[in-house]
Amino acid sequence: MSYAQLMETIGQVNDLLNTQSILSWDARTMMPHGGHETRGKQLATLSVLTRDLLVSAATRSQLDKAEAEVAALSDGAVQKVMVAQVREAIDYHLAIPAELTRKRAELGSVGHAVWAKARAESDFAQFVPILRQTVDLNREMANAIGYEEHPYDALMYRFEPGETVATLKPLFARLREGLMPLVKAIGQKEQPRFDFLERHYPVEEQHEFALSMAQKIGYDLERGRLDTTLHPFEVSFTRNDVRITTRFNPNYMAASLFGALHEAGHALYEQGVDPAYTRTPFATDLVGLYAVGGVSFGAHESQSRLWENHVGRSREFWHRHFAEARQAYPEQLKDVSEEEFFRAINRSKPGFIRVEADELTYDFHVMLRTDIEAAMIDGSLDVEDLPEAWNAKIKEYLGLDVPNDALGVLQDVHWSSGQIGTFCNYTIGNVMAGQLFEEARKEAAIATGIAQADYEPLRAWLTQNVLQHGRRYGRDELLVRATGRKLDAEPYIAYLTNKYSELYDL
Amino acid sequence: MSYAQLMETIGQVNDLLNTQSILSWDARTMMPHGGHETRGKQLATLSVLTRDLLVSAATRSQLDKAEAEVAALSDGAVQKVMVAQVREAIDYHLAIPAELTRKRAELGSVGHAVWAKARAESDFAQFVPILRQTVDLNREMANAIGYEEHPYDALMYRFEPGETVATLKPLFARLREGLMPLVKAIGQKEQPRFDFLERHYPVEEQHEFALSMAQKIGYDLERGRLDTTLHPFEVSFTRNDVRITTRFNPNYMAASLFGALHEAGHALYEQGVDPAYTRTPFATDLVGLYAVGGVSFGAHESQSRLWENHVGRSREFWHRHFAEARQAYPEQLKDVSEEEFFRAINRSKPGFIRVEADELTYDFHVMLRTDIEAAMIDGSLDVEDLPEAWNAKIKEYLGLDVPNDALGVLQDVHWSSGQIGTFCNYTIGNVMAGQLFEEARKEAAIATGIAQADYEPLRAWLTQNVLQHGRRYGRDELLVRATGRKLDAEPYIAYLTNKYSELYDL
Repeated sequence: MSYAQLMETIGQVNDLLNTQSILSWDARTMMPHGGHETRGKQLATLSVLTRDLLVSAATRSQLDKAEAEVAALSDGAVQKVMVAQVREAIDYHLAIPAELTRKRAELGSVGHAVWAKARAESDFAQFVPILRQTVDLNREMANAIGYEEHPYDALMYRFEPGETVATLKPLFARLREGLMPLVKAIGQKEQPRFDFLERHYPVEEQHEFALSMAQKIGYDLERGRLDTTLHPFEVSFTRNDVRITTRFNPNYMAASLFGALHEAGHALYEQGVDPAYTRTPFATDLVGLYAVGGVSFGAHESQSRLWENHVGRSREFWHRHFAEARQAYPEQLKDVSEEEFFRAINRSKPGFIRVEADELTYDFHVMLRTDIEAAMIDGSLDVEDLPEAWNAKIKEYLGLDVPNDALGVLQDVHWSSGQIGTFCNYTIGNVMAGQLFEEARKEAAIATGIAQADYEPLRAWLTQNVLQHGRRYGRDELLVRATGRKLDAEPYIAYLTNKYSELYDL
Repeated sequence: MSYAQLMETIGQVNDLLNTQSILSWDARTMMPHGGHETRGKQLATLSVLTRDLLVSAATRSQLDKAEAEVAALSDGAVQKVMVAQVREAIDYHLAIPAELTRKRAELGSVGHAVWAKARAESDFAQFVPILRQTVDLNREMANAIGYEEHPYDALMYRFEPGETVATLKPLFARLREGLMPLVKAIGQKEQPRFDFLERHYPVEEQHEFALSMAQKIGYDLERGRLDTTLHPFEVSFTRNDVRITTRFNPNYMAASLFGALHEAGHALYEQGVDPAYTRTPFATDLVGLYAVGGVSFGAHESQSRLWENHVGRSREFWHRHFAEARQAYPEQLKDVSEEEFFRAINRSKPGFIRVEADELTYDFHVMLRTDIEAAMIDGSLDVEDLPEAWNAKIKEYLGLDVPNDALGVLQDVHWSSGQIGTFCNYTIGNVMAGQLFEEARKEAAIATGIAQADYEPLRAWLTQNVLQHGRRYGRDELLVRATGRKLDAEPYIAYLTNKYSELYDL
């Protein structure tokens, strides 16, 4: 009875969080320019009321009684896990002074304009005061949340529960050891032909082709839609309404195509959550206050990267679909072979910008940011020394000299919103994708399916092992159930080594 | 201080109501089919939380203190009026048992499917049980709200405060007396040419032309957008984001054009509310729980009908804009003169369907519904006898024999949602439009402006006299301030008499 009441309250919290997502989606895709300011107020009100509802005395009383009700159930029982998750989230929120949350939101609302100007003028000094406050507030936040070893652990908790500086250290070391030789070796090789990707591709045709590819991998338009934004994203309002966006560059077709595959991969996660978990804690990030079924940001990224890269940039995929690409773009691809297309979309070339990085160099961008964030938070790196540290890492990892701060330390929007602690998810997603994909491909039907452009067996395996569970199991628990072991970089490193050795004849 | 706190709470209520409007707009324009059920839950949660916030003990305590704070101000002072409106709304909501609201919402959620099937099969008997419950619940609702003379007055209060069965009676009688002779006389006359309106008009071109006309009368796209729906509507999320939709029939261009002008008229009301009233009671219908700046449904309709009919179907308008229509549709209008176009869009011909009715016959559809609703609520008309009563009125007013219930008593969606009491607004809007337009045109600059396709003087007058005030003054108070008298049917009757006498040579 109390359990049922608690779940009804969580259902309302989920409704409010989904509502916030709808308002944000609308603001980014549909809202006329003039709506900006009042939309901000609407979102702020929802945000306050949602947190208030979750931690209210009434909810806590329901929680106390629900805990007593489920106490006799065995560990791991769905009801018991759900109740424990609510307790964990409420404790988390009550630990953070409202004043601190308010201050960080305020900082975020002014930070963006300062950052945008600093970036436009490539002048890091303008951004220093804001960034210093952001670091200080996040350090306070970490202290309020609590941690065992490193304050940065407390900040990552919201996005990647269980991940710590201590666990990331060996992971990053192994990735550097495994991938740096590949990057270096490719630097000595000739690059494949690339010109045809930069021909003129009309936006309408890109939209149609990108959407058709997203549907091929299983994105369900009965419960989704594709729109256009400058920065692609996926967002869900329950599993029944999961939307994606992509960007269209008329002179570079790969952006929309792989953007759509990437976001469709995210969307498949949400569309695949067990319907029975709708509006429950298993479809609600009660710590991050975000209506999402994926169990961590890294786990989510594993699905987008799996479909974008392991499937979407594979030789098998284009062996089956290059004819369709040619049908969609007969003029642009008339002098291009399947092999040339496959090599072009897998070209690896170190660059300054994370969001434009290829599969092989991407993780270096992530590692450098994560290390820098952790160092800022523990005070071992002063904000003013950031560009120097950044540029040194880019030189070490990718062999490049950063020419200015716009192409360096000012390129990402994250810090301007007051947020610290979310970069590692991208690399964890890559590693996890490698691990899951290796395991899935052991089933003959999956490998055969992919070779025949039938992605249903792979999707069924992912649904069975990952998607359907929503937030029921932690990320590593999910990995152990699916692959027999926790996060493990070896399959990912082996995959990249094989792929790039063949591509570049290393 | 307490006043400021109360206003901050009302600001939050406004945010939540606008949020509901955003979710509804999205559901009608953008949402994939699969999202229907969970969207319903999200809206239900928001609806409950909004009402709870408004009538909460905390808000009532703020209200008590705010009343004391503003007591010394003079009557009519903005702060005092705002506080009084909050009191009025809270009293209203507290008078209605939550159980009754819940029951009516529940009935509304099942009623639509039953009505849709009954209409599809043109079988009123299927709808009788639902309609009977709807009438009973609304009668209970009326008793809970309270009234002086007629229970129907209590139901109209939410949409048209101050309007009663007693005030409508002489208004309707005067309209019948003034307009029935016109309808009868036109029945003896030859109809103008109409064929060219039913030619093929590509949807994209209709969209462009309709939007350009909406912009001509002043609809601001910096704070708005036009989308496509089966049933056109306007909705606002504060004055900064006011959206309209229209429908596109490739074989009838007038629907999208006048639909857009009508909805743009509504939109001008919301876009014209004083910015200082944003998120205050003057931009929030706290009784109807709807984020709107217009002071009554009738007042809102006055603005849509004024721009659609008094301006958009006037000879002056097409004298200036017919060349543009011809430019937009060179093939379709190549054998059509300005005079023929003007006459076609003003053709008056009795029909069965309210939403397709022309300017002259529209009010008869409204009067018959209003009278029938009032009679059902006071029990003088049994639900089962509805078709008979309906068909008799259609015969009396329009001289038509209703062939089946789909074209008769089952045509409107309103009752299926559990709602009774909102039809009179359409006719009040027409009457009020006539009254306001007559007054406005007394200013030479306005009449001259219209003749020169400059609608700014008219819009300025409407902003000054109506729009800017939002919900500050009641509808009749607004009319007295603008025209020197309360609602008065004479200008409207005179306008229709002149217009149709000339059109049909009566």
